[in-house]
Amino acid sequence: MLTDKPDQGLRRTLHEIIFEADTRAGRFFDLMLILAILMSVLVILLDSMAEIRREYSTLLLILEWGFTLLFTVEYVLRLYSVRRPLVYARSFFGVVDLLAILPTWATLFVPGAHYLTVVRLLRVLRIFRVLKLAQYVSEAQHIMRALHESKRKILVFLMCVLSLVTVFGALMYVVEGEEHGFTSIPRSMYWAVVTLTTVGYGDISPRTPLGQGIASFIMLMGYGIIAVPTGIVTSALVRPRPVSTQACPVCGRDGHDVDAVHCKYCGGHL
Amino acid sequence: MLTDKPDQGLRRTLHEIIFEADTRAGRFFDLMLILAILMSVLVILLDSMAEIRREYSTLLLILEWGFTLLFTVEYVLRLYSVRRPLVYARSFFGVVDLLAILPTWATLFVPGAHYLTVVRLLRVLRIFRVLKLAQYVSEAQHIMRALHESKRKILVFLMCVLSLVTVFGALMYVVEGEEHGFTSIPRSMYWAVVTLTTVGYGDISPRTPLGQGIASFIMLMGYGIIAVPTGIVTSALVRPRPVSTQACPVCGRDGHDVDAVHCKYCGGHL
Amino acid sequence: MLTDKPDQGLRRTLHEIIFEADTRAGRFFDLMLILAILMSVLVILLDSMAEIRREYSTLLLILEWGFTLLFTVEYVLRLYSVRRPLVYARSFFGVVDLLAILPTWATLFVPGAHYLTVVRLLRVLRIFRVLKLAQYVSEAQHIMRALHESKRKILVFLMCVLSLVTVFGALMYVVEGEEHGFTSIPRSMYWAVVTLTTVGYGDISPRTPLGQGIASFIMLMGYGIIAVPTGIVTSALVRPRPVSTQACPVCGRDGHDVDAVHCKYCGGHL
Amino acid sequence: MLTDKPDQGLRRTLHEIIFEADTRAGRFFDLMLILAILMSVLVILLDSMAEIRREYSTLLLILEWGFTLLFTVEYVLRLYSVRRPLVYARSFFGVVDLLAILPTWATLFVPGAHYLTVVRLLRVLRIFRVLKLAQYVSEAQHIMRALHESKRKILVFLMCVLSLVTVFGALMYVVEGEEHGFTSIPRSMYWAVVTLTTVGYGDISPRTPLGQGIASFIMLMGYGIIAVPTGIVTSALVRPRPVSTQACPVCGRDGHDVDAVHCKYCGGHL
Repeated sequence: MLTDKPDQGLRRTLHEIIFEADTRAGRFFDLMLILAILMSVLVILLDSMAEIRREYSTLLLILEWGFTLLFTVEYVLRLYSVRRPLVYARSFFGVVDLLAILPTWATLFVPGAHYLTVVRLLRVLRIFRVLKLAQYVSEAQHIMRALHESKRKILVFLMCVLSLVTVFGALMYVVEGEEHGFTSIPRSMYWAVVTLTTVGYGDISPRTPLGQGIASFIMLMGYGIIAVPTGIVTSALVRPRPVSTQACPVCGRDGHDVDAVHCKYCGGHL
Repeated sequence: MLTDKPDQGLRRTLHEIIFEADTRAGRFFDLMLILAILMSVLVILLDSMAEIRREYSTLLLILEWGFTLLFTVEYVLRLYSVRRPLVYARSFFGVVDLLAILPTWATLFVPGAHYLTVVRLLRVLRIFRVLKLAQYVSEAQHIMRALHESKRKILVFLMCVLSLVTVFGALMYVVEGEEHGFTSIPRSMYWAVVTLTTVGYGDISPRTPLGQGIASFIMLMGYGIIAVPTGIVTSALVRPRPVSTQACPVCGRDGHDVDAVHCKYCGGHL
Repeated sequence: MLTDKPDQGLRRTLHEIIFEADTRAGRFFDLMLILAILMSVLVILLDSMAEIRREYSTLLLILEWGFTLLFTVEYVLRLYSVRRPLVYARSFFGVVDLLAILPTWATLFVPGAHYLTVVRLLRVLRIFRVLKLAQYVSEAQHIMRALHESKRKILVFLMCVLSLVTVFGALMYVVEGEEHGFTSIPRSMYWAVVTLTTVGYGDISPRTPLGQGIASFIMLMGYGIIAVPTGIVTSALVRPRPVSTQACPVCGRDGHDVDAVHCKYCGGHL
Repeated sequence: MLTDKPDQGLRRTLHEIIFEADTRAGRFFDLMLILAILMSVLVILLDSMAEIRREYSTLLLILEWGFTLLFTVEYVLRLYSVRRPLVYARSFFGVVDLLAILPTWATLFVPGAHYLTVVRLLRVLRIFRVLKLAQYVSEAQHIMRALHESKRKILVFLMCVLSLVTVFGALMYVVEGEEHGFTSIPRSMYWAVVTLTTVGYGDISPRTPLGQGIASFIMLMGYGIIAVPTGIVTSALVRPRPVSTQACPVCGRDGHDVDAVHCKYCGGHL
């Protein structure tokens, strides 16, 4: 946890309940919190549907305020039960916790805060607190580590994809032209992303035989190069022998195994 | 099998024919059953097509009742030929076997049971009984084991995907607005799922340049993160037989499986 | 090659040129053949485009007959230059070679053989003769072997997919109903395939919130389970240690490495 | 680098700044260049949008000429600072550098060079010069090597895909016919690519039950065979460091890399 645990007293007990999941009370608190988050998210979703808002606007308003008050109390208790409240308040989850309640309070003071209320949906991220509950941490860490290891390969891959999108977007802008919906290069690039990623809305699609030929080529390319990120992540997840970053102090070459004691090239002691 | 085999007599013979595939009669029964299932499924499919129902409604009704009577006899025989009928009746396949015949019988007593008849299509699941026939069990088990091992990783992945869908759905609801088809947050989330999974119906698609930019980002993300479940399942399927680091104390060779008791080269005890 | 090489004379030389690629003449023949195939395919494609057929119908007809005569001569020479012509004629490529020329000849005798001419496009398969040219054989064999090894896993996977398609197709038929385009169960199943495979034409798409919810679920499922065939094929391509099918003659257990001499469980000699 | 570094003087200093990234000035130059490229690309994109071109045409023209002059100066300096300018001018990046400025100059002399200006977007490829900056080279090389190793497998795969597309395109042309949008075989093949790659625009889609059945088959095939390129690339990426079977003659331990000269445990000569 980012926050430190107070030494004793009520604040310590509160910390154990709110931030930890080792005690019965702590696990119960976490479960209730998840339920409250999910239900408050449901309220926001229902509130955005015109027919339902018309029918049940009062009920939804009451529920929203109920959850906001609940989360406000929780936020204050969190601030109270950590040793250094500012560290918590500035942490990722501290900010998310605040953003989950601020928009509703803002509607009291700022009249046009309509769209701001969507921000409340960031509450959904609070679910990830549940991860601390569980066996899931190591699983998440395994995926994270694989993605982290592959970071640079993925960046190189994305740069290639973006270049392809730019070049093919421009090409289709020339070939198909504005009368077939390719009204500007950015729009053609949007089409190229839609095609390369095999999404294929069909809101813009090539009409000329030449355009359809180029599009076919892009599709086959997109179909094929999906293999690259998949291969990168898979090989990072499978990889059994991580390479040490240490270079040999004698010959200076690197690429040694982490369990290597001697340089495999010159025999020098690592 | 979930059900126990009776000790002797007709019930034992019936059990061997109906539940097992070691005898000639058992294999023949299984084959006939599969044929009957496939044909009865075909009848249901044809029955749902308006033009065909108009033309051949009597024929289809006769066929449907023929298969229902057949499956009813089979169900009764299954109940009769197991030692503990209740255990069978409450097992997964027992319930499926019952649901395959109940809807047709229900039409006799309940007039409006029209839509209930769709339930009969669960018959298709009975095909999986064929798996007991065959070499397919171990293959299915291998896939199952890999999925089971990856369960938690897949859950973490799904939670991330759902959070992305919620956040991006809300964002597009604000950016595109109701006039472009993003009429509510749940509908925007539906669009986000359609886009992130690269399905891309095109029934809802972004119209504003900003919306198209965000959509492009979601598509590239969806295109990239497909690599994660693929990597998870692949690494679980690839890693089936870890190699022990232990060398044989007799011949000194290694590369043995972790479950090996004897050296595979010289037969020495490990 | 499926066909046997004659012992001597003209037939032997022809066999070397037509069926083999070890000689200069043989390689030259193969190259010319590929060019002829590609050009004749191009002629068929152009002939199917209304505007082009109107303009150049005579030229296309002349070209088509030219290629047909050429391939007919080639077919006769192939029959002549193998020791057992019937074996060749009944082999896969023998049939393809015949189907590449028959439709054009048929137009002379059968007036309505219009659609039959599409069969000529099977010529494209003759390109795979080129594989004999080359280093590609072992590559193709590697892929083939991996697919062959994975055959049963893929079948189990396809059975699961088809069951999902049936069950979800029927569900959507009930939920969305005929007024939203889900006019019959087979059509709903077609929609389910379009959705599960992430193709997503959008010619049929769910309109009700419940239908969109179920569709989202199917999409996420389709997005996730693509990982399964990928994992299966990848692990078959990666797999370094094939398992012997031999069971131990002493203890009867299997799963031994192909290089194992002794049973790893009981030490018995394999 | 393709180009050689001059021995001394101004040209050597310029070479260090423009072509290398070891000095402070070199890294600063690279950063500025990337910024200029990105901004000039942005100008081209905005210039292609009708509303923006109407409003800001003068500003965009000035910016475009500014960047063109800048890149022209850069190009001349590059020519000046390499020992053999012709080798640079004919290298890949040399041609890209020239194509990035030529179209704008051409508008002065050739009146109808409107569409030519799209060629300027090739500037985006110049970003890849940044790769020399960085740790990204080895990552890019790893991906390149995996793709290179898999070259033949991928070609065999593409040939199979194109044959499938031809055969299924022709089949759908016959089954669906011109009245359902399958107006020619090339157009049907375009549809087959759209379907097999799971893009699925929906601009052409099967209408007859038979056509939908065949389409479902193609989709399932496309959904499944995506596994093949993925498996090919993944297995090439996973298999980067084969382990030698040689044991150390001094300490007897094995698991050394094939390029190892000394034992990594005891330093003994292998």
